[in-house]
Amino acid sequence: MGGDFAPAREVEGMVQALRAAHNEFEVILVGREEAILEELKKHDMQGLRYSVVNASEVITMDDSPTAALKQKRDSSLGVGMRLHQEGKADAFISAGNTGAVLSASTLILGRVKGVSRPTIGTFFPSEKGVCLLVDAGTNVDCRPQHLYEFGVMGSIYFSKMFKKDRPTVALLNVGEEKTKGNEVVLEARKLFEASTLNFIGNVEGRDILKSTADVVVCDGFVGNIVLKFGESVPTFLRARLKGVAERGLLKKLIVGLAKSTLKAALSDMDPNEHGGVPVLGVNGVSIIGHGSSTSKGIKNMILKAAEVAKTQLNKHIEEALANSPVPPVKPVLQVAR
Amino acid sequence: MGGDFAPAREVEGMVQALRAAHNEFEVILVGREEAILEELKKHDMQGLRYSVVNASEVITMDDSPTAALKQKRDSSLGVGMRLHQEGKADAFISAGNTGAVLSASTLILGRVKGVSRPTIGTFFPSEKGVCLLVDAGTNVDCRPQHLYEFGVMGSIYFSKMFKKDRPTVALLNVGEEKTKGNEVVLEARKLFEASTLNFIGNVEGRDILKSTADVVVCDGFVGNIVLKFGESVPTFLRARLKGVAERGLLKKLIVGLAKSTLKAALSDMDPNEHGGVPVLGVNGVSIIGHGSSTSKGIKNMILKAAEVAKTQLNKHIEEALANSPVPPVKPVLQVAR
Repeated sequence: MGGDFAPAREVEGMVQALRAAHNEFEVILVGREEAILEELKKHDMQGLRYSVVNASEVITMDDSPTAALKQKRDSSLGVGMRLHQEGKADAFISAGNTGAVLSASTLILGRVKGVSRPTIGTFFPSEKGVCLLVDAGTNVDCRPQHLYEFGVMGSIYFSKMFKKDRPTVALLNVGEEKTKGNEVVLEARKLFEASTLNFIGNVEGRDILKSTADVVVCDGFVGNIVLKFGESVPTFLRARLKGVAERGLLKKLIVGLAKSTLKAALSDMDPNEHGGVPVLGVNGVSIIGHGSSTSKGIKNMILKAAEVAKTQLNKHIEEALANSPVPPVKPVLQVAR
Repeated sequence: MGGDFAPAREVEGMVQALRAAHNEFEVILVGREEAILEELKKHDMQGLRYSVVNASEVITMDDSPTAALKQKRDSSLGVGMRLHQEGKADAFISAGNTGAVLSASTLILGRVKGVSRPTIGTFFPSEKGVCLLVDAGTNVDCRPQHLYEFGVMGSIYFSKMFKKDRPTVALLNVGEEKTKGNEVVLEARKLFEASTLNFIGNVEGRDILKSTADVVVCDGFVGNIVLKFGESVPTFLRARLKGVAERGLLKKLIVGLAKSTLKAALSDMDPNEHGGVPVLGVNGVSIIGHGSSTSKGIKNMILKAAEVAKTQLNKHIEEALANSPVPPVKPVLQVAR
């Protein structure tokens, strides 16, 4: 119910997902029953496997994540996540408030053993495929060990999604040399070097779109800024092309062609194609999508949830961290003076 | 001599600059005299105001900045910068090793009173004009006061370059809200709010290309990564368009049109148009350009140096910091245990 167009797109997307997957799974719709039933009337639901669970409250995009979770006890997010935690569902998806989904995932599902900070990665298109940037905005202040954990989780997620053993992992930095970087990254590099990851060293900002590494690790402050910068590029290009089009009719025609060609060339940058991203490091499968997800976006999120649920991602993350030569994060002790 | 195509492009660019500025200034070429004289033969130098000062050594792109400055006492960089420091030149430009030019600027020219860290900004094109991102890679670990100083210097530089009083200044962050950000940015925001800058609050990664603020402040780690990511976008687009062109002859034609239209729309993103960036906060005018600068790039760097030299940038920076309500950076004391 927290998405920008809920529950219309959610119901539409569910119908598409069930058809595409030939009813391989069942979808539980969680939210205001009346509104959901109203949407269901618009579709031919004959033979589709779904059910509805009522939840009277909605966490909005403006709500403070943790406060909303406590105050709105009967929110679709809370109720849905608990269904997953209780084993009544194998995965959870939401196009709602990202911070709230992240908090609910951590608080209700709990962390995978060995993980100190759950994280979210994001896929960038790259010249030869995709690049997973992790953390994409979850943890803004990080210690070196946190970056290392993001690398472990990102590597496992990438390997499962693209059936690639030992994907290449790199640290996002200001230069390739070992001596380059801020204090946290300089320390983190030593941990990656001591690890069993397929670590290829530092990469720079220009390497993200260049297919230099499969997984690029950074803190959530840098990740969020690069992600949002990248997302703004198509709008910027359209604005620039519009400027050219104003110079005459022929230009207008050529710009029209240029725009549609560019759109075709960048079609895989549409977040609705990705089907959202999982919260990595929590005991469950929790997929977060854009608030403005289309029905296709919702469909792809559901299909991704089913795919991730089959990979036993969390078991692999737990094993990798347990067998890691890099020691776990030590808690920072608060010493009373 | 440190540029990728020195001294050919440097001499060519100088000829173009002198012609464009109608000999308004004189250019001193510093470097291996023989090589420079050889290049000069290729041009009609009749009536142009220039001279040559010999320097036998070259700091290369691979040299470690501070070590090279000490070891290569007769480098073109060191000799040229000292000519400026001694008042024999009003400005210095180089397309050489960025780190070395930065070190030489700080060590030879010294810092402007009140400045704790000299910095370099970079211009991004934006929907309605340009955005100055500062720091663009100079200082990777920053304290809140450093970010504030970057804001002061960036604001003055922007106002002088674009004749705009009180340009808008913003902090690059992961959200607009006051509570968003990492520890350094949260503290920095308080300093900006207490200042007399035209501070408009936080902006996100997507705002850089959107003309939300004239000057966007970040540490050099984030700045370098965003800058290099941005620089990689045109190459990525070309690679993607090439993929579309491979799908047939008509597509190939349309992609050709799309590419040239895109190039026209993005012409001001060419770093050779900008004419390099000044090192802000040093006692002098030191302009750094891309190693791969074309002769047009060199020409524009020389013209920019002449322009910056006229603005009394440093006097304004010193005054702004002396009259600032924000206290200067306190040195970190090393306490022996």
